[in-house]
Amino acid sequence: MSPWAYVRARVRVCMCACVRVLALFFNFSQIFQFKNIIMNIAFIGLGVMGLPMSLNLIKGGHRVRGYTLLEKDMAAFVAGGGIAAKSSAEAVRDAGLIISMLPAGEHVRAAVFDPGGIAGGMPESALYVDMSTIGPLETDRIRGQLAGRGLSMMDAPVGRTSAAARTGTLLIFAGGTPEQIARAEPAFKCMGERTIDCGGAGRGIRMKLVNNFMSISLNALASECMVFADALGVSRPLAIDVMGGTPAGRGHFTTTYPKKVFANDLAPDFALNLAHKDLGLALDAANTLHVPLPLGAAAREIYSMARAKKMGALDWTALLRFYEETANPKG
Amino acid sequence: MSPWAYVRARVRVCMCACVRVLALFFNFSQIFQFKNIIMNIAFIGLGVMGLPMSLNLIKGGHRVRGYTLLEKDMAAFVAGGGIAAKSSAEAVRDAGLIISMLPAGEHVRAAVFDPGGIAGGMPESALYVDMSTIGPLETDRIRGQLAGRGLSMMDAPVGRTSAAARTGTLLIFAGGTPEQIARAEPAFKCMGERTIDCGGAGRGIRMKLVNNFMSISLNALASECMVFADALGVSRPLAIDVMGGTPAGRGHFTTTYPKKVFANDLAPDFALNLAHKDLGLALDAANTLHVPLPLGAAAREIYSMARAKKMGALDWTALLRFYEETANPKG
Amino acid sequence: MSPWAYVRARVRVCMCACVRVLALFFNFSQIFQFKNIIMNIAFIGLGVMGLPMSLNLIKGGHRVRGYTLLEKDMAAFVAGGGIAAKSSAEAVRDAGLIISMLPAGEHVRAAVFDPGGIAGGMPESALYVDMSTIGPLETDRIRGQLAGRGLSMMDAPVGRTSAAARTGTLLIFAGGTPEQIARAEPAFKCMGERTIDCGGAGRGIRMKLVNNFMSISLNALASECMVFADALGVSRPLAIDVMGGTPAGRGHFTTTYPKKVFANDLAPDFALNLAHKDLGLALDAANTLHVPLPLGAAAREIYSMARAKKMGALDWTALLRFYEETANPKG
Amino acid sequence: MSPWAYVRARVRVCMCACVRVLALFFNFSQIFQFKNIIMNIAFIGLGVMGLPMSLNLIKGGHRVRGYTLLEKDMAAFVAGGGIAAKSSAEAVRDAGLIISMLPAGEHVRAAVFDPGGIAGGMPESALYVDMSTIGPLETDRIRGQLAGRGLSMMDAPVGRTSAAARTGTLLIFAGGTPEQIARAEPAFKCMGERTIDCGGAGRGIRMKLVNNFMSISLNALASECMVFADALGVSRPLAIDVMGGTPAGRGHFTTTYPKKVFANDLAPDFALNLAHKDLGLALDAANTLHVPLPLGAAAREIYSMARAKKMGALDWTALLRFYEETANPKG
Repeated sequence: MSPWAYVRARVRVCMCACVRVLALFFNFSQIFQFKNIIMNIAFIGLGVMGLPMSLNLIKGGHRVRGYTLLEKDMAAFVAGGGIAAKSSAEAVRDAGLIISMLPAGEHVRAAVFDPGGIAGGMPESALYVDMSTIGPLETDRIRGQLAGRGLSMMDAPVGRTSAAARTGTLLIFAGGTPEQIARAEPAFKCMGERTIDCGGAGRGIRMKLVNNFMSISLNALASECMVFADALGVSRPLAIDVMGGTPAGRGHFTTTYPKKVFANDLAPDFALNLAHKDLGLALDAANTLHVPLPLGAAAREIYSMARAKKMGALDWTALLRFYEETANPKG
Repeated sequence: MSPWAYVRARVRVCMCACVRVLALFFNFSQIFQFKNIIMNIAFIGLGVMGLPMSLNLIKGGHRVRGYTLLEKDMAAFVAGGGIAAKSSAEAVRDAGLIISMLPAGEHVRAAVFDPGGIAGGMPESALYVDMSTIGPLETDRIRGQLAGRGLSMMDAPVGRTSAAARTGTLLIFAGGTPEQIARAEPAFKCMGERTIDCGGAGRGIRMKLVNNFMSISLNALASECMVFADALGVSRPLAIDVMGGTPAGRGHFTTTYPKKVFANDLAPDFALNLAHKDLGLALDAANTLHVPLPLGAAAREIYSMARAKKMGALDWTALLRFYEETANPKG
Repeated sequence: MSPWAYVRARVRVCMCACVRVLALFFNFSQIFQFKNIIMNIAFIGLGVMGLPMSLNLIKGGHRVRGYTLLEKDMAAFVAGGGIAAKSSAEAVRDAGLIISMLPAGEHVRAAVFDPGGIAGGMPESALYVDMSTIGPLETDRIRGQLAGRGLSMMDAPVGRTSAAARTGTLLIFAGGTPEQIARAEPAFKCMGERTIDCGGAGRGIRMKLVNNFMSISLNALASECMVFADALGVSRPLAIDVMGGTPAGRGHFTTTYPKKVFANDLAPDFALNLAHKDLGLALDAANTLHVPLPLGAAAREIYSMARAKKMGALDWTALLRFYEETANPKG
Repeated sequence: MSPWAYVRARVRVCMCACVRVLALFFNFSQIFQFKNIIMNIAFIGLGVMGLPMSLNLIKGGHRVRGYTLLEKDMAAFVAGGGIAAKSSAEAVRDAGLIISMLPAGEHVRAAVFDPGGIAGGMPESALYVDMSTIGPLETDRIRGQLAGRGLSMMDAPVGRTSAAARTGTLLIFAGGTPEQIARAEPAFKCMGERTIDCGGAGRGIRMKLVNNFMSISLNALASECMVFADALGVSRPLAIDVMGGTPAGRGHFTTTYPKKVFANDLAPDFALNLAHKDLGLALDAANTLHVPLPLGAAAREIYSMARAKKMGALDWTALLRFYEETANPKG
């Protein structure tokens, strides 16, 4: 080995050591991000969510070309290091990854297929990730139409709030093949805290819709519960404390369902008939007290239907069976 | 001080010390239970809940005289060490504590006021504890009528299931003065795991109603969520895992509400308008897939009302404000 | 035929002719009323409805003894020719017909069974008619308890408004045997325009409840329709004119149902699937326009359930079949 | 009078007589149709509704060129005298009037704007009439986009059933300028019994949506009423007969509303509080009898809200006021 080769080898060893030390400083995800600094990303839609998400991509070292309709948003994007494009088609021309974050399905459809849209400029080698929250059937249609042109699309809507968009701690519901998800992951890591593989194309938006259906409806039910407690003179802190130890506060998915209906055990721990009765007492009291409980009222009629199907003596979780028999999904 | 007095004093000190040591061994509640072994309790209603509860009182050392309509239940009660009475009036004659556990308000009213009922035999020194789940206004009326006769009543309905009644691990929602609750506590301890002081007369049944309203309605919503996930092809384990990290699974009481609407901060983390939009996407998809979401549909109209009240740009937790403005409790 | 027999026959013919002539002058109802001028009636409850009803009985020539709690009402009753009683028991003592008109089931129960109540003074020969609107199961219980004491009761709640109570043009939903109804008819005629024989004991209150359920819920639906029309810019007069020619304004009972579902013809004149679709269009538009349609939203989920039961291709009136299969009445 | 004038006068009289005789043969509408026999009409969408409608146009003497996707439908159209076109664009090329009758908004949009669509072939002089039932905002968007190209569109969805489509007795909800409606009237006359001028562009589909919202939701409510009557043992014929004389069967638009809420008279004929109470009695009975009343349950909560707004002592028609205050239409 020549002295020079020796020096080079030593230097290489030292550099490796340095890299390892650095790897102890920066965590691995940052290292991986580092590796991806050369990614060319197009970002369509720079609004309340899109702008902070795109800025986090830039901070993560990516080269981001953006397009949006509002000049103000574009100015903020450029001020943060983004490159302005004059159309979606122009933004996506050199991109390896194309992201859209738009308000509704019609905007996504327009951004993709209108003249000057994504489909008009997107390289066949690129991956298009729609992170908007739109109807799942619309997602499927757009993906199908793009596939017909040889273009690749996945869905990856996000959970949490605009604050999480700013801090890069979104929840990312990834709907695509494992390869697509892996390919987008360096970008997802800059924007989100956790990427959830939802099991295939279109499953990201579906998972998000399930989650949001539940949390948004539950918000209404929780509000009903609070005003009902108020009207009855039950203190909110007490009510919340008590419900923290019951399915009222902890939900059914990890408490009653696993032991009973998920386990096919419908022997009554708490009979559906009694649940129906207690809900009736609550509605009577509430209607006397001028407290509207529209979700509770809808729930009582469902219990009533389940009782008419002779489920009254079963466990209250048998209500899931009633719903299963009532629904008849096509897809 | 005579030597004898001295010895006695020393013995007393030693005994006190022994008691203290014992108190470290056995916890206080057990000590108090020991003290109460001689309590005379009347138990009216020996059904699915009442029977195991009364048997736990007997196991706790109390003398329990019971009355019920079904011979089979009475036989099981006697076999467990209970003393049979021929009427409620007879059962309560010597009791310090009277407990009733009956199916509905009309049964409680009859058990108390009908000829041969509790009110006819109850000593003025006794405390009557209704542990049934009945309407709160009915509880108030019965308590008021008894008070007019110089008789004392509190409410203490129970949470959890008949299994918990057997194992003595019920949740007891105590509605009475602190003195009443303390007096009944030795009996509660035999039947329940936790006694919750709900803040005064009639507040026990109210607290229970709030809790049950929430858990029972939530059961319907949780079922809707599961069949919706099924129809969309989202796996239940994935959905439950994901929702375990969001308000969908964790509820709003300890997540979004404390930070936002409880703190009077209605700046949008997640705008009510967007919640309304996402719920609409869910309902569209569900109605296409033949999945009925009656609670979700009721919820969307509430969001629609809140939007009409110009709350759309506020945080989604502002829905509680809408409910507060909509309700107008009298009591 | 003897001459005498001939004379008797002629006289009989003449008398018949006279009766017929009289019948042309006075109509039969007036004749019967005339006959009943000597009826002794007790009237319990002289409120917004009871007071004008009792005054119409007095105008009809009956002797009416009344009892009520409010002095003001009693004064008006006495001013109108009524006889004041100091208790229900006193009021009913000499009565052939006893009428109660009270706000709710608990008041009726108290008026009948409390000390000084109807049951305490009512002659066995009398007929008790409860004209209050109370729960049908409560009616049945009270009637059963009175029957146990050998006392006779029927139900006859009224339709229409307090204005109709004043003008004696109420609708009377009579629930009793034909003999009971005939016996009460002279009184009913003074108070009402039409007596409807609803088919037996307890059926009067049931018929009224069905009618009121429909008209009261329909009021909500009609209001939804009006605000929806307003929001869409459709003029109310036009909408009402158009709907006057369709089931929207004319109802289904005499238009679509007789031809289709009542006739077991479920071939689609208008397919249930299309009804579901149009309701979806309406809800979409309304939710965009900030118009809440809670009943419409509940309806859509019912159509969704019916579609899941493979009724989508049937006539929209097949929805009745869905409800029939969903309900399972016990009684 | 000269002999010639006399002859002319006689001839005129004879001709008038002949015209009258002809008018007895052909009715006037047919006469007017005769005038229009030269109209060139394009008909896009020849399904369950479109096919019989187009055939009625042909019977009316018009020359109809049609386009549809299903070969079977096209065959029936041609067999009935229609002229087959290979695309929408081809069908509309020579048309003075273009009619589309398609299942949903997306189909209309595609039929208009896709390559080979209506917009590609339509002469500027023609009038396009969309008779499909689609969302009103979609109608507005399509009309606006066509206007941008100098093309004229109106909406004219139809009421009644496919049977009425065959017999040419549809109800036509015309949304356009008076000139547009007059121009399309010769065609409308062949297909419908009555053309309703709904007051301008987009108002046809809006009027239809209001009508259908009401009749479709009412179908659900009517079914609830029937199963409730069944469960209570009230005979359907009796119930329908009785309700035929009350707002339950006659609706509120022409009975209670004109006298009360439309006349700004909210003094209680029937107090909202009493309506709320009766609905509660109905729901209690129904829930005891295992009869689900989801629309009734939703209605009760609305009454509860109105009571909380201190409307309880007002007339029940004040519920419309509550809805007016709750909604806040933007458009």
